[in-house]
Order: sequence, then structure tokens, then C-alpha cells
Amino acid sequence: MTRAVHTTLRSRGTEVVIGPDRPFCVIGERLNPTGRKRFAEMLRAGDLSRIERDVAEQVAGGATMLDVNMGVPLADEAELLTRAVQMIQGLTTLPLCVDSSVVEALEAALAVYEGKALVNSVTAEDERLHQILPLVKRHGAAVVGLPNDEDEIPEDPRRRLELARKIVDVAAGTYGIPVEDVVIDPLAMPVGADTSLTGRTLETIALIREELGVNMTLGASNVSFGMPDRHTIGSAFLPMAMAYGLTSAIMDARAPQVVQAVRAGDLLLGNDPWGGAWISAYRSRSRTP
Amino acid sequence: MTRAVHTTLRSRGTEVVIGPDRPFCVIGERLNPTGRKRFAEMLRAGDLSRIERDVAEQVAGGATMLDVNMGVPLADEAELLTRAVQMIQGLTTLPLCVDSSVVEALEAALAVYEGKALVNSVTAEDERLHQILPLVKRHGAAVVGLPNDEDEIPEDPRRRLELARKIVDVAAGTYGIPVEDVVIDPLAMPVGADTSLTGRTLETIALIREELGVNMTLGASNVSFGMPDRHTIGSAFLPMAMAYGLTSAIMDARAPQVVQAVRAGDLLLGNDPWGGAWISAYRSRSRTP
Repeated sequence: MTRAVHTTLRSRGTEVVIGPDRPFCVIGERLNPTGRKRFAEMLRAGDLSRIERDVAEQVAGGATMLDVNMGVPLADEAELLTRAVQMIQGLTTLPLCVDSSVVEALEAALAVYEGKALVNSVTAEDERLHQILPLVKRHGAAVVGLPNDEDEIPEDPRRRLELARKIVDVAAGTYGIPVEDVVIDPLAMPVGADTSLTGRTLETIALIREELGVNMTLGASNVSFGMPDRHTIGSAFLPMAMAYGLTSAIMDARAPQVVQAVRAGDLLLGNDPWGGAWISAYRSRSRTP
Repeated sequence: MTRAVHTTLRSRGTEVVIGPDRPFCVIGERLNPTGRKRFAEMLRAGDLSRIERDVAEQVAGGATMLDVNMGVPLADEAELLTRAVQMIQGLTTLPLCVDSSVVEALEAALAVYEGKALVNSVTAEDERLHQILPLVKRHGAAVVGLPNDEDEIPEDPRRRLELARKIVDVAAGTYGIPVEDVVIDPLAMPVGADTSLTGRTLETIALIREELGVNMTLGASNVSFGMPDRHTIGSAFLPMAMAYGLTSAIMDARAPQVVQAVRAGDLLLGNDPWGGAWISAYRSRSRTP
């Protein structure tokens, strides 16, 4: 890797910089109905009131940004996502990651977002690239790129690297989106499904750092899916991935063990000068009754 | 790295294999008077009774081996270490790491040890190499090599690699000690002293794995020395170091958070097939009142 690439995201009031020489970017994952039956039902009924507590919890847990996904089957996702983004902008100044597989929902959400959002996500499929990257460019946003294409979610780290490179190249070459505004997701898979999968994710992270130098994020909770004591697995996985070059994760900031593991990772990797953040976070925890 | 190098240690009843494709080797560190004033006083008075509880705690915490150091100023270390090794062999079947800077103490301890011990340690200093390696060879032991010499404890990972190579070469070339019986200590330093030190340790680990392929161990507690919430730092550091190639650590098995981080590391790195050890350890924790 040559120089540190910085991805800057903004809300109306806050700027966040993701980079290998910055504290790890914790993107709070809870604003998402996946696996939350009751929340999904509320959203389908147009009731967004639960979001207030979810935002407060992610913020209190130390999230740096928030991921917002309103993917409820049979609901108008564009409308829900727009309302959610508007509401969340009134609750917090953290920058947002607008998360949808529906192009119209992303478009509607970007139209009401005040700042520079992270768009989650585009794949290396030609159709998706040419649907989503123009939106990203028009709104001056950044984008998460998933290295899978029409054919497969590749297992081979070298193939993931190729697809990541394709996303970066199309973003820059065709749409003029700078490399620092593409954040690659190296794809984290459940270790419970196959214990060789995490090794491949780590290898992908190392290759992407070495060859592309871009920032990376992933869904950290995937790794421990289906296993007991998920927080301990997450707390071991994230420092490993950080040491290989991961600079951000979409994760649940309500788990102090996992957030503290990430902050210890910052300290150990030299991204917490003099350990100031570590020591002051410890002091504030010690004061909590 | 080409093939997995295996370091085999034995007690009368147990064999332990250290290797990159094996569960991480936890060498319990508590049998050591350093920083334990009362224990040091007891040992100086010839009272070894405290050892019984220390051994029981390390074993209960999941240690794979035990490090035994009886370095008390103004005491007869050879006699203390001999007695301690004899006593501990009656308390546990875990293999031992005999730990001393005094050649006569190592010699006396090896004479009473029944099995294949790990000798902690030799440096790359010529005098030390030619004092300690003959002992290691004569007793059919394995040895921990520290990559420092007469001049310095080098900061540069490449210099540490050179000194590690020197130890491996002298062990094999002059004394016929096979490469698998040399375990290199990549030198872990306190992150509180300088937050760039851990990065250098990780880089050293990666270089040694790549260039020498040998097993490695280090004093994990050093990393968090002087900082608050040491266990969380240790729990983040060890998975990072494991992902880079560390295969063992001298550490306090009384800290469940740190031991569990290491076992999560095994799972994530594919050294716990089907997650069997992870799941059964979780079940037995859940049964504990």
C-alpha cells in the first residue's frame, strides 16, 4: 500500500473520515428490519416510531455512522427509506449509509439526505453498476462495492479482487467517481457454515489493501451467525480483520464487548495516539454505575 | 510458508503439538514471582506451597502448557526451579516450559523433567547460544529463541528476522537441533510506551512465518502493560497476532476473556473443525453456576 486513502462522509453537522490511519469506522447496523419481525410489522404499517430508540442505542454505543435499511417485503421501500432518513437526520448528526437493493429507494433517500452519504451497495454486475453509479455520482456520494457478479459470489480471494477492481475502474473511468469514494466489501461469511471462510475473507482484505489500497467495510455480524457467544467471535474477528486492512464495519454498536475490541484494535494499530481515546473511554465506563 | 512446522512437547503423560494448523498453545504464565512480592518472599524462604493453587488455576483456565520461572533475587534459583518442576509434575500432566536466565537452573530443571520440555530462552548472543543450545540438544528439548543480540533489542522487524534466522541456523548447523524445535519470540512490547510497537511485532510475526516458517510464542501480557482494561487489549491483540502467524503465547489462563478470544481465533482461522471445541466450551460455561 502506498498512501492512506480517505473516504469522507458528511451529515449536515458531522464529517467522518474512513482510512487506515483513522480510528475504525463503526457503522451501526440496527436500523434494519431483517430478522426483526415486530419491527418489520411496524414498518409495514407505516409506524417508524421504534427508530428513535434504535438510533439512541447505536449512538450511545459509540457508532460513527448509521446504516439505514428499510427493506420490508410488500412495502413501499422508497417511501419508508425516505421517511426514515428524514426522521434520523432529526435525531442524530451522524452521517448515514443508505442501504437498499432497490434503485428507486436509494434515489429517493439520496434526494432528501443532506450531506455526503455512503450508498450500500453496488455489485460488479454490469446492470447494477450502470444503475447505481450514476446516482452516486449525481449526489456526490460514496458507494460500497460488493465483489460478486451475475455468475457467482466468488470464494477465491483473487477473483474477489478482480471484481473489486472492476467496480473501482468503472466508477472512476465511466462515472468519474474517485477511488476514495469506493469502499469495497470483502464479503464476510458465517464461520459456522465452513471454518475456512474467514481465512478467505482475511486474504481478500490483504489483497485489496495491497492492490487497490481502498477502504473496506463488511457486515461483521455475518461471521458469527448461527454460533453461540457471537460477541466473543465478533470481538476476535474484527481486530484480525483490522490488522489485515479493514477500515470499517457494519455492526451492532449495542455490544460493548465488540465496540471495545475495535477500539483496542485502534490502539494496537497506532490509530489512537498516546492511547488517549482508550484511556478516556475506560474512565467514562468506570464512572458508569 | 510451505508446510506446517510442528513443535512437539511432552510430559510423562501428555503430548502437546504447536503448529499453525493446531489450536493455539496457551502457556500459563503465573508460576513466576515477577511482580508478585508475597510469592517471591515465600519462594525465598523455600516455601513452594503457593504453586499448588497457581497450577490449579492455570489448568482450570485452559492452559495447554505451563511456564515455570523461579527467578528470585538472592535465592538459589537452580534449587528452587528443580523443586518446582518436581512438584508441578506431581500436580499436572501438562508439559512444562522451564524459564530462566541462569544456565545452571535450566540444566538442573531439565535433569529432573520427565519428557520433552520447552526451554525459555536463548538469545542470538554468541555466548548464550553456545551455553544453552548444547543443553537443549543433550536433553532432547525444544527452545524459545529471542531475536536480540549483544548490541540491541532491535526495533526493525527485518533485523529481528535476521537474528531469528541466526538462532535457527546455529541450532541446526552447530547442534543438530531441528528447525521445528526452535520457537521464536517475535518480542511483544507495551503499546502504552509507543503505539507503533505492536505494528512492528505483527510485521515481525509475518516475516518469520514467511521466511522461516517456525512456530512462535511471546509474552502476551507485555502488550497491555501500564494500560487500563488489560484483558480487552489482550483479547484484541492475540487474535491479530494469530492471524499473522503466532502459534502460542505465554499468558495468564486465569483471564477467561483472553482465553476465549484465543479459542475464537482458532475457530476463525480454521483450527477448530466444525466449531466443535467452541460449541462444547460454550456449553460447559453455560452450565457453570
